[in-house]
Amino acid sequence: MDLLERPIVAAFATLRPSGAPQAHPMWFVWEPDEEVIRLTHTSERHNYRYVQRDARVALLIIDPDFPYRYLQLRGSVIDIQKDPEGALYQRLQLRYRGTSSEVADRAVRVALTIQPSTFVGRNPRR
Amino acid sequence: MDLLERPIVAAFATLRPSGAPQAHPMWFVWEPDEEVIRLTHTSERHNYRYVQRDARVALLIIDPDFPYRYLQLRGSVIDIQKDPEGALYQRLQLRYRGTSSEVADRAVRVALTIQPSTFVGRNPRR
Repeated sequence: MDLLERPIVAAFATLRPSGAPQAHPMWFVWEPDEEVIRLTHTSERHNYRYVQRDARVALLIIDPDFPYRYLQLRGSVIDIQKDPEGALYQRLQLRYRGTSSEVADRAVRVALTIQPSTFVGRNPRR
Repeated sequence: MDLLERPIVAAFATLRPSGAPQAHPMWFVWEPDEEVIRLTHTSERHNYRYVQRDARVALLIIDPDFPYRYLQLRGSVIDIQKDPEGALYQRLQLRYRGTSSEVADRAVRVALTIQPSTFVGRNPRR
């Protein structure tokens, strides 16, 4: 649970049109009531098209204090919504930076919702 | 180059038999003369089978001091060798922990060689 709750930059793995994997660092937030992950993204990035083509994704959250402790979520992008006010982006700015600012690219901001189907965790002794 | 050289735990993205992505934390070493990445792995883990089925992988190396700075490599596993002495494992122990110990599971240790075809880096101003 702490790995879901702490503001850790996750590795977001998606599928390219060829089917090959790729991975990028991403902010995320866990929505405990819905049991989904939300990511802020833009409609101008490759991943926006890629996840519409193949919604299967994985998110790897590594404990920055002990990188052998981690949580991997696998699942699918079940929803993509426009975020014309940048509301999710600002929420994630607050979560990750402690402050929020005007979202210059709010016209292209989108909110991705990931429904995890599998959680794989490892919590080795230090 | 520093992201390749520093002992950072990387996110290793592979393809499951279904074609879905997955990601795990992994030690790695960059071999500058060959321009390949080596990972120590075991023949008992799922990924060992998965990369033989589909060799396409990605490795994401996030700067732990500034997680918006990163290097993503995409490529293929071009070689898998047994490592019956655990030599690569010990080399990676030294790289990541500063000391090495006997490799208890050396009978199943393997060395994966990844040839990167694409490097994507991001080095934003702080």
